[in-house]
Amino acid sequence: MRFLRRFQRGELRLTRIEAFSDGVFAIVVTLLVLELRVPELHDHAGVSELAHQLLGLLPKFLSWLISFVIVCKFWLNHHHLLGLARHANYAMVWLNSIFLMFQSFVPFPTAMIGEYPTNPLAVTGFGVVMAFNTLLFIALQAYILRNLLKPELVGTQDPYLNRKSFVGVVSYLIGAAAAWFSVHVAFVLYMLTPLFFIVPPASQAGKAASASREA
Amino acid sequence: MRFLRRFQRGELRLTRIEAFSDGVFAIVVTLLVLELRVPELHDHAGVSELAHQLLGLLPKFLSWLISFVIVCKFWLNHHHLLGLARHANYAMVWLNSIFLMFQSFVPFPTAMIGEYPTNPLAVTGFGVVMAFNTLLFIALQAYILRNLLKPELVGTQDPYLNRKSFVGVVSYLIGAAAAWFSVHVAFVLYMLTPLFFIVPPASQAGKAASASREA
Amino acid sequence: MRFLRRFQRGELRLTRIEAFSDGVFAIVVTLLVLELRVPELHDHAGVSELAHQLLGLLPKFLSWLISFVIVCKFWLNHHHLLGLARHANYAMVWLNSIFLMFQSFVPFPTAMIGEYPTNPLAVTGFGVVMAFNTLLFIALQAYILRNLLKPELVGTQDPYLNRKSFVGVVSYLIGAAAAWFSVHVAFVLYMLTPLFFIVPPASQAGKAASASREA
Amino acid sequence: MRFLRRFQRGELRLTRIEAFSDGVFAIVVTLLVLELRVPELHDHAGVSELAHQLLGLLPKFLSWLISFVIVCKFWLNHHHLLGLARHANYAMVWLNSIFLMFQSFVPFPTAMIGEYPTNPLAVTGFGVVMAFNTLLFIALQAYILRNLLKPELVGTQDPYLNRKSFVGVVSYLIGAAAAWFSVHVAFVLYMLTPLFFIVPPASQAGKAASASREA
Repeated sequence: MRFLRRFQRGELRLTRIEAFSDGVFAIVVTLLVLELRVPELHDHAGVSELAHQLLGLLPKFLSWLISFVIVCKFWLNHHHLLGLARHANYAMVWLNSIFLMFQSFVPFPTAMIGEYPTNPLAVTGFGVVMAFNTLLFIALQAYILRNLLKPELVGTQDPYLNRKSFVGVVSYLIGAAAAWFSVHVAFVLYMLTPLFFIVPPASQAGKAASASREA
Repeated sequence: MRFLRRFQRGELRLTRIEAFSDGVFAIVVTLLVLELRVPELHDHAGVSELAHQLLGLLPKFLSWLISFVIVCKFWLNHHHLLGLARHANYAMVWLNSIFLMFQSFVPFPTAMIGEYPTNPLAVTGFGVVMAFNTLLFIALQAYILRNLLKPELVGTQDPYLNRKSFVGVVSYLIGAAAAWFSVHVAFVLYMLTPLFFIVPPASQAGKAASASREA
Repeated sequence: MRFLRRFQRGELRLTRIEAFSDGVFAIVVTLLVLELRVPELHDHAGVSELAHQLLGLLPKFLSWLISFVIVCKFWLNHHHLLGLARHANYAMVWLNSIFLMFQSFVPFPTAMIGEYPTNPLAVTGFGVVMAFNTLLFIALQAYILRNLLKPELVGTQDPYLNRKSFVGVVSYLIGAAAAWFSVHVAFVLYMLTPLFFIVPPASQAGKAASASREA
Repeated sequence: MRFLRRFQRGELRLTRIEAFSDGVFAIVVTLLVLELRVPELHDHAGVSELAHQLLGLLPKFLSWLISFVIVCKFWLNHHHLLGLARHANYAMVWLNSIFLMFQSFVPFPTAMIGEYPTNPLAVTGFGVVMAFNTLLFIALQAYILRNLLKPELVGTQDPYLNRKSFVGVVSYLIGAAAAWFSVHVAFVLYMLTPLFFIVPPASQAGKAASASREA
């Protein structure tokens, strides 16, 4: 299709794409805290009333913490991934934009599980959104590795990387399914899943070190 | 006029203008999600109640999606356009600022059609704002192409580009008019319009490739 | 005082100071729009009700527009000013931070005159805050011109610049005083004042062109 | 542990880490102002009613001011610290992310003491959060000084720096304890504590000047 071929055009520098992405990541993680609203007290100086209300906010603190770690993990892997590309074309820009679109969506499911931590649908929704975000990241990763890899890095990347990345998708979906039996199990799975790619994958060969240095 | 001549002064590096613009773009797309408020439930663990409420948010999800794509499209074309300029002067800075001003306005009509998707005035308003944004982009584009084009790019740009860009303005306005007969037609037109410049226009000659590489 | 002498230490690159400042400026101008809340309608599809409510928002649109132009003007002059400095020291960093602090405060008086455009105290408050912001900018400017000016720019700057900059302070304060007789006069003055430094001051000599090119 | 060893991998450029951090800092300081809500007036043009309401906002203005200065101080020291590192590894990225996580948390305790300045628990909470933030900064600082210091800076850093940095932790905790006797004393301590590292520590030797120039 002529329409689709258009996206292969363009040799964009990565600087502004990174600046735009970093902006979105930074705002997303900072907006997460806006869900933590100061509770309303009848007695403004009441210590036990405030203590009780803050305890009630625990699910919100927890969901804030989980989402913060997940978004930071995406940021770090995004940083690593863009360091592998020699430049960007329009297809990559749009894959990146759609990925960022659903990163910026994260505050919504985060607020939902913070507000209704015992609601199976809310807890499921969180997992599904995170699985979808991981899929969008895999799409961006697959596109860059296949089409835009720096020439000097060819052969240094794990050929099974895309396949391995699906572990995260599956893990989030298991959490989403588990929510219907026990929301606690789901929360635990959501907390453990980011550990899979808590640091970006290592390269196969020694060339990798110099590559990431230039990343 | 002496007042207006002042704006032709200045030879500013584009870096900080891009940084400021990228910041505004990134915040605008991320703020869009703030309109998606977690619904209030009577039964906090009620699955069918939450499902029902989330369905009611569908127009908000849709308007968020449309605006996100539109703003990303503006960002990409803005990125391309600034890559054509050899430097900035004060006139360009102010054309850029006014353009960003109405980019930052986008969350308002987005919230409006998300909240009242069946209100013809709300749906019309969205189209008019987007047509106006496109006009401001064309003004910036016309100014840069006429006054600040990199010397090596002279002759490589489509001479009918500004004229062609009006397709977007007209398309948004048709959508705005259609809203009074069918809001569905308007929504469809708003979704299709960004496809016109979903990737920036190609240059006429081979010189273009090297230009965008340096962009 | 030993405590104060400490601030003269440090030779910081301007890049991160500009990045931090640009971030604050970009967020401030974008947050301004958050005050524009979608009105609540009894009849969701009611055209005349929405039209009527949007007309009621006019003061908010106007205050958004005025503040956007004012903050953009500060951004442009800040951009110009930092281009004159050879590096930053800690005194400049803190003068800059305090300046940014009150830039980030702008959404508050903006919301106040948008909400209560007929309240003289609200309208006065806006002018006083803007006068204070201009004072903070003059303090930063005076410090940079006296202590951190690039060696090659010595002698090219208007020696009366700081004095001339007080025109803005006085103009905002006249607006603030006028609010007690007529808020309309105050609004007009607030709209006209940014025109004084709508573009940064030109240098005295030919050297200036090359300086701003490197800015 | 093999899991932990993974974090020592990676040689990342500091640019994107700084961009992400600057974004978070800039958003945090700007979000602080969102707590300052325009009061609701019965008589929209009522001067004395507005004056009275604004006086009631004084604790919010004060808490905004204190937090702004504290976050700017962290930004400046963070800027200085990252200038000492030769590159980043994954351990540093995560220490940095966790530090930023609790920087982005600052608006919550700020809002709390702004809303309930006479509530000892709220005032204590503010101090505890700030002490914890200082601890996280010390952790990042200790890691960088031990593992990632630029070779040319070895021997120029104050060997007791980490120990001295605990002064801030202790001072915030004294304020937190004092809140149970007098919230005024606590507020004063919170205002004075940022003065300890209002400018980053000087280096021991002459080499330092050139280092910070490149920072």
